Amino acid sequence: MYSYQLLYAFVKKLFLRIGCSEDDACIVADVLLSAELRGIESHGLLRIPDYINLWKNNRINVKPNITIVHETPGTAVIDGDSALGMIAGKKSMEIAIKKASQCGTGWVSTRNSNHFGIAGYYAMMALEHDMIGISMTNANPFVAPTFSVDRLLGTNPIAVAFPADKQPAFVADFATTPIARGKLDLMHKKGIKAPYGYVQDKAGNPSNDPNIITQGGAIVPLGGDYEHGSHKGYCLGSIVDILSAVLSGACYGPWVPPIVAYLPVKENPDVKGTGHFFGAMRIDAFRPAEEFKKMMDKWILTFRNSKPIEGQEKVLVPGDPEREMEAVRKKEGIPVMPLLIEKVNEIAAELGIKKL
Amino acid sequence: MYSYQLLYAFVKKLFLRIGCSEDDACIVADVLLSAELRGIESHGLLRIPDYINLWKNNRINVKPNITIVHETPGTAVIDGDSALGMIAGKKSMEIAIKKASQCGTGWVSTRNSNHFGIAGYYAMMALEHDMIGISMTNANPFVAPTFSVDRLLGTNPIAVAFPADKQPAFVADFATTPIARGKLDLMHKKGIKAPYGYVQDKAGNPSNDPNIITQGGAIVPLGGDYEHGSHKGYCLGSIVDILSAVLSGACYGPWVPPIVAYLPVKENPDVKGTGHFFGAMRIDAFRPAEEFKKMMDKWILTFRNSKPIEGQEKVLVPGDPEREMEAVRKKEGIPVMPLLIEKVNEIAAELGIKKL
Repeated sequence: MYSYQLLYAFVKKLFLRIGCSEDDACIVADVLLSAELRGIESHGLLRIPDYINLWKNNRINVKPNITIVHETPGTAVIDGDSALGMIAGKKSMEIAIKKASQCGTGWVSTRNSNHFGIAGYYAMMALEHDMIGISMTNANPFVAPTFSVDRLLGTNPIAVAFPADKQPAFVADFATTPIARGKLDLMHKKGIKAPYGYVQDKAGNPSNDPNIITQGGAIVPLGGDYEHGSHKGYCLGSIVDILSAVLSGACYGPWVPPIVAYLPVKENPDVKGTGHFFGAMRIDAFRPAEEFKKMMDKWILTFRNSKPIEGQEKVLVPGDPEREMEAVRKKEGIPVMPLLIEKVNEIAAELGIKKL
Repeated sequence: MYSYQLLYAFVKKLFLRIGCSEDDACIVADVLLSAELRGIESHGLLRIPDYINLWKNNRINVKPNITIVHETPGTAVIDGDSALGMIAGKKSMEIAIKKASQCGTGWVSTRNSNHFGIAGYYAMMALEHDMIGISMTNANPFVAPTFSVDRLLGTNPIAVAFPADKQPAFVADFATTPIARGKLDLMHKKGIKAPYGYVQDKAGNPSNDPNIITQGGAIVPLGGDYEHGSHKGYCLGSIVDILSAVLSGACYGPWVPPIVAYLPVKENPDVKGTGHFFGAMRIDAFRPAEEFKKMMDKWILTFRNSKPIEGQEKVLVPGDPEREMEAVRKKEGIPVMPLLIEKVNEIAAELGIKKL
């Protein structure tokens, strides 16, 4: 087990060492550690080798000049100048929140960014302002549309956060696929098969090989197959891609720059980097925030207190498992796989900073 | 086969007969016939008996005074005054579009409404204004959250429409469940079993009985089961419910007034009627509309021209099947099941209008 403080200091030092400013290194550490605390390890320290690799390949600018390309009082397009996604993401969401505080709602589409970690981090930034927070991003093209063998979409997550009164906030944060790539990697490493309904092989046949996406296979959209509504998951992933990239001028579909070595970087001069989309809506632009939050409490209690299926302890409200995990890990520390410790320590040695 | 004109005139006359204004009767006919043309029969004439039944039970106000409860330049809460959902829905989306034309984006949450037909109708209203259109609604509580036996959500559809240049618009319109209730009804009537992954029995066990929801069973969220991401479908349905109802003060979760006789109407004095949520975003609040629409063309062609799985004719872009169906039905007419003709003719006889 590692303490939050220890890991935070390590990540901060590492990103300072590659040239990030003090503020930026703190943001990266905060977003990655927030994923670790919430139990979303696939978006925590595990991504550090990818980020460092992108930096080595000159695909990340550690001194970015993030600019507003176009704006109205309630909207903006932001150019991330190849920043780490967390830096461009946090700045973009701050702008959405500022615009919402002035206009009722604020909407930002961001181009020329990189992988931004957990989508929920940005959506949750709205909560303390009594706003609804929304964030989404496109990602590595691993996902085949319904009926297609080609990989044209990412796992394109959506996060939405609603503030409540005495109850903890509702926080949904989910990929628009049945499974995250990180979890497939883990199954492959453990030598176990994947359930059917996660992936297809390069000809589009159902597969249970968790490593199939390194061999031309693809993740399927949420729903799994057409009969069970995969075209709806395909719609969702597409909506995320268009709001994040076509609206901002970021790389869309198969051109989203991958962060894994086994997908090629496809050049497209019309578009730039990874795209994100952020929204903030002031509750009191619709009704008094206190009224809404009290009704959210009732909504949450109705769902949490509903009757569980036999064998299940309880019915969860979106955000419950992550919040419960956060409480445990803040007290007891954060477990990190020995293999990952080895990997980040290699990077630490290379960069000349103290190992974990 | 029935011509569009014939069916339109019939529906219009029917709703005039129960007391709707000329304008309102035309809106109802337009929304229902739009569903028939687009091949979404589950939201067309099939719903007329439900609507008439609600009217007989004084649950629909045919002379509604639809009011703005609260507004800012870019947002509003609308009270539908128990109008037919199509009337409250169209008016709400018009307000969202007007606000977007002035402010960049417009957002409307509507309470005290009823079933509004196809969500896509309202989202598509934004297209001719070079805006992105969004619409969603809550609905009859038929859906059990992941791990729950209780029915707390509707099939809560989401529609998003993006304008394109030479290509037809991207129009996604989908329930946040694997299957619509109407399709289960149809399987039951045909005496066939449902595939597993659509419904559960009243104890929460997987079921293949398409009639199980009349016996305490439930539809499951998109994803099917927890292993395949049903918690993501549950998140989506919840987000629709909260934006449509908690934000407006409509009935949420299990209190949404059902339009079928086998679900009880649950009283809740805090909240009113069915809820909807609408959004309109002016493209040029982000980037020149021409640029966006040209890039949408490229996006659409990339997806439509991708390689289909063997045995599939082509890869579809959201909106393709409905648009193709519309072209056929405008030319060849609209097929209506004899049983449905019988049913609406009974209503016609009762109301003293000419039968179909």
